[in-house]
Amino acid sequence: MSKVAAILTNMFEDVEYTEPADAFRGAGHEVVTVGLKAGETVKGKKTQTPVEIDRAFEDASPEQFDAMLIPGGFSPDILRAHDEPVNFVRDFMRSGKPVFMICHGAQLLITADVLRDRKATGYVSIVQDIKNAGAHYEDREVVVDGNLVSSRNPGDIPAFIRESLQVLES
Amino acid sequence: MSKVAAILTNMFEDVEYTEPADAFRGAGHEVVTVGLKAGETVKGKKTQTPVEIDRAFEDASPEQFDAMLIPGGFSPDILRAHDEPVNFVRDFMRSGKPVFMICHGAQLLITADVLRDRKATGYVSIVQDIKNAGAHYEDREVVVDGNLVSSRNPGDIPAFIRESLQVLES
Repeated sequence: MSKVAAILTNMFEDVEYTEPADAFRGAGHEVVTVGLKAGETVKGKKTQTPVEIDRAFEDASPEQFDAMLIPGGFSPDILRAHDEPVNFVRDFMRSGKPVFMICHGAQLLITADVLRDRKATGYVSIVQDIKNAGAHYEDREVVVDGNLVSSRNPGDIPAFIRESLQVLES
Repeated sequence: MSKVAAILTNMFEDVEYTEPADAFRGAGHEVVTVGLKAGETVKGKKTQTPVEIDRAFEDASPEQFDAMLIPGGFSPDILRAHDEPVNFVRDFMRSGKPVFMICHGAQLLITADVLRDRKATGYVSIVQDIKNAGAHYEDREVVVDGNLVSSRNPGDIPAFIRESLQVLES
């Protein structure tokens, strides 16, 4: 059983959190939401799914988790305006543990400057940002580069879950 | 009197459109909203200000305008998922006419790949994107680089309006 940190704040793309989180839990893993403030209820962008934040970034460190999930929507852009989420994501990537990001999730890795020379994909609006960050962008439903699994949008969720689970359980 | 194209869709940062647009009109200039669909009413992110789109990108060209205003919020990121706004912004920058952008506005110029070697500023969350795009980022309330005027956030609006009007009327 693995412990997965789900990085969230308001305006996350609902299904990009709920579907992978349900799949991870269904496979016997634990999902812990990490956000700006413990106990806060954040809401999704499209269907306003309420999610309670379990732990604040300031009380979280990569050592406490086995993997990290970054759903998209506008949540990653809101988070990267703060130092704590950016530092957490940078430390997590440097740990070499599995990182699963979808849609706008790559924005956090770009601000943390940890995408250089990695193969990755993301939402159509951030393609140029991914390329400018020194990554090798690929227009595919899921891209697996070692510990890093990335997908483009909600339509890619089945492939994203499949490859994330495989990395999580390998 | 100049004709200013205001580039807008849903979730624009309300005051980053309304305050510059009011100031430009107050100084005798015309403001035309350009968006994805003529006749559509788009709404701001914070106070849901309704704004009608005057002209679609497919019916607009830089020759029809003297300057371009790009308010922030999530509007620029939504727009840059489409080819027409990106092509319009690229053509406008290449025309050398005045461009005023604030907050997330630079995202459209990044996707259009027209920020290289320019001095610019923008919202804190996109600082790394601006740098990665090859621009010279400056953390100041307003940065003027030839035809390009940029500011960081709603707090910078007075300086943004002052310098934009000066470029518009020079």
